[in-house]
Amino acid sequence: MPNIKLVIEYDGSHFHGWQEQPGQKTVQSELHRAVELVLHEKIRCLHASGRTDAGVHAKGQVVNFACEQTPDLRRLHYALSSVLRGEVAVLSAEIVPDSFHALRDATSKQYSYTILHRPAPAVLTRGRSWHVYGPLDIEKMQHAAAVLLGEHDFSSFRGTGCEARNPVKTLFESELSLQGDFLVYRVVGSGFMKHMVRNIVGTLVALGENQLKIGSIEALLAAKDRRLAGMTAPAYALCLDWVRYEKPAR
Amino acid sequence: MPNIKLVIEYDGSHFHGWQEQPGQKTVQSELHRAVELVLHEKIRCLHASGRTDAGVHAKGQVVNFACEQTPDLRRLHYALSSVLRGEVAVLSAEIVPDSFHALRDATSKQYSYTILHRPAPAVLTRGRSWHVYGPLDIEKMQHAAAVLLGEHDFSSFRGTGCEARNPVKTLFESELSLQGDFLVYRVVGSGFMKHMVRNIVGTLVALGENQLKIGSIEALLAAKDRRLAGMTAPAYALCLDWVRYEKPAR
Repeated sequence: MPNIKLVIEYDGSHFHGWQEQPGQKTVQSELHRAVELVLHEKIRCLHASGRTDAGVHAKGQVVNFACEQTPDLRRLHYALSSVLRGEVAVLSAEIVPDSFHALRDATSKQYSYTILHRPAPAVLTRGRSWHVYGPLDIEKMQHAAAVLLGEHDFSSFRGTGCEARNPVKTLFESELSLQGDFLVYRVVGSGFMKHMVRNIVGTLVALGENQLKIGSIEALLAAKDRRLAGMTAPAYALCLDWVRYEKPAR
Repeated sequence: MPNIKLVIEYDGSHFHGWQEQPGQKTVQSELHRAVELVLHEKIRCLHASGRTDAGVHAKGQVVNFACEQTPDLRRLHYALSSVLRGEVAVLSAEIVPDSFHALRDATSKQYSYTILHRPAPAVLTRGRSWHVYGPLDIEKMQHAAAVLLGEHDFSSFRGTGCEARNPVKTLFESELSLQGDFLVYRVVGSGFMKHMVRNIVGTLVALGENQLKIGSIEALLAAKDRRLAGMTAPAYALCLDWVRYEKPAR
């Protein structure tokens, strides 16, 4: 059975997240239906590199599935984007070795989170950026982002109900950059726990606003206590940029 | 009577352009209504740096109007964005000399036009980018964009019904850059005629596709004939970035 790998883009605002759920419109369920429609066969399961929360966008989510017949990839590519008109686009489709598994084999991922930092609310980036209007100590936030680099126990940033066995994760990049009125947090890691990026961003903002009792990111990491860190930043400003399947360079 | 200058952002997809028109929702009519609501007085006229077509976005349109009482600018700023929730944002509000006129005094403007150049349709930049999927000779397009720099008779690029007296305009910047899957055309000029930027972009794409009988931008300029140039590119991928009121540096 051929193993097909897709790279897809989606607008999270149309979906209740990636994962199939009864009675909800999810990326997995819509894509599953579209693949079956285009290939004229039953597909057992679609695997993604990881779930994304309701509202989270993706520019480069990776998916794989097995099918009976070898499909015309060019046709699959165009037909899927066409069926999923404007909500999901298929950026590439290829046949990969049977052993490839989008979730198990992922070695690193990049997310970016966009904060709009100005008095006026978002118009052109509405539903894509989190509007934060108060004064922020940006240097402090940038320092905190950099401290998260490397291997840490991220228990202070794991969402409630997270089922990850090991809260120790490695970040290969963790950087907050100022781009005009935007603050963009870019993070590359081997794996992320539930709500982890949104909890990091909520904490960076709370640190920048001097709102936390524990004002240092080092102390927050050491405390391993979710209650001490900042709020969970809204989902709609988060985007999964890409997923890699080789070992990262460092 | 105080003269108020506003810098505003708007999402063109919500409006039938800038200009007030009976029975249509336009930026001018909505902003006019909002200003009167917030200031509790009749405002005679709102002037903008120029009209934008239906669908065109703005990140930095400049507007001025005269009012009876000196307003609380901070309140005006917040209240207007709040009334125009998510469709227009007021980025700044200030009192300017009586002589200031947003249209007459504008010395230069920047527009940018975003082309998405890949096989898959736009999802995250839907309604913000023009999807062009065929092969393009990008170097040829970049050369053509550069040729437009300086003073030229832009008759080949003026929209039908354009009432400009003089088709000779000066471009201070005219550059097509490749940014990942995007081709962004950025143009700075002293003034633009109706549909001029969209006609330039349509022509750049037609040149890149080798679709035109006259394959050189120099010959198209010299012909002064709109029928020889390319199509009018769609409005929704065009954005007015800023307007300046000093003489440009060069």
